[in-house]
Amino acid sequence: MQLPSTLLENAVNEFANLPGIGKKTALRMVLHLLKQDVATVENFSETIARMRREIKFCQRCCNISDGDICSICSNSMRNQRMICVVENIRDVIAIESTQQFNGTYHVLGGIISPLDGIGPDQLNIESLVHRIAKEQTEELIFALSPNIQGDTTIYYIQRKIQGSSCRVTTIARGIAFGGELEYADEMTLARSLANRLPVQQYVK
Amino acid sequence: MQLPSTLLENAVNEFANLPGIGKKTALRMVLHLLKQDVATVENFSETIARMRREIKFCQRCCNISDGDICSICSNSMRNQRMICVVENIRDVIAIESTQQFNGTYHVLGGIISPLDGIGPDQLNIESLVHRIAKEQTEELIFALSPNIQGDTTIYYIQRKIQGSSCRVTTIARGIAFGGELEYADEMTLARSLANRLPVQQYVK
Repeated sequence: MQLPSTLLENAVNEFANLPGIGKKTALRMVLHLLKQDVATVENFSETIARMRREIKFCQRCCNISDGDICSICSNSMRNQRMICVVENIRDVIAIESTQQFNGTYHVLGGIISPLDGIGPDQLNIESLVHRIAKEQTEELIFALSPNIQGDTTIYYIQRKIQGSSCRVTTIARGIAFGGELEYADEMTLARSLANRLPVQQYVK
Repeated sequence: MQLPSTLLENAVNEFANLPGIGKKTALRMVLHLLKQDVATVENFSETIARMRREIKFCQRCCNISDGDICSICSNSMRNQRMICVVENIRDVIAIESTQQFNGTYHVLGGIISPLDGIGPDQLNIESLVHRIAKEQTEELIFALSPNIQGDTTIYYIQRKIQGSSCRVTTIARGIAFGGELEYADEMTLARSLANRLPVQQYVK
């Protein structure tokens, strides 16, 4: 695709670097911005740059934050002795939108995956271990992806905090709500049988 | 979707204003940018703002341009007496990528569409008429969308330049290359029969 202007081409290339955006979609975005006022586009561009420049990570839970401590960690209405361990910020947003969790988070920034060269040292595990010891955490809930890497990470962290009185749990794995038994894979079905619950305990 | 930071939320909203981008895709883009260096993101943002601030429209053909006259109009290797009339810049890019056209363009900025409130005065038609008279254009090729609006626009412009010696043509309409006869609509098939070509003249 040959573009009639270098300025246009540079802008298209910048957009095409974003994940999931090809050259044609990038061009559509740039031509859309071209139709807007200069002030609107300046505002677009400044908002993005400012976000990157000024955003911080919460010193306690490593979540994204406007200040030094994020809004979840500084909220006294939430149970500060319950920590939900997640892989990344997207998971925090997903759990928050259920409006069912009232504790705090700890964002690992990834999961242990030797094949991708990610070891425990690259993740926010040390700070989690310190935090549990210091804050007398009552419950640690693992909400990691249900795969080998997730299980390895859970195993590693659990060994690190051995001896603490903190209760350690993991989110339930089983047949998804609305899912059909016959289409579930064998692993999921086997696990959901092994971890079966008394009907009284089953929360609707 | 509740986001943990106002800075993040503003950036997501800016991206979500772009055509074809929802909140989830916007979030993915913003989190991608968050992982980049500050300098990379500043560069992204400055490239977009600069494009909008500095881009010009060619004074001759209304195409996008870095200077007052675009690279196609100022290219002496191209046939400056042949004008291809297109609706927008995307069409210029599409025709340029065929590498089969060696003339110049004239970008109308739309087509006559009374239902959408677009009349001839909102389009770059006056400048086209002046241009044909002034530059002794030899051929005017209409490459507009094959619909009522396109045909109206062709009819309108043709009446405006009546009396000039300029040859007026339109791109061929017929069965698309690789298309199958049985799936073509009746209008297209009927037109391609009416405008049939001698086999010698048919360019492969």
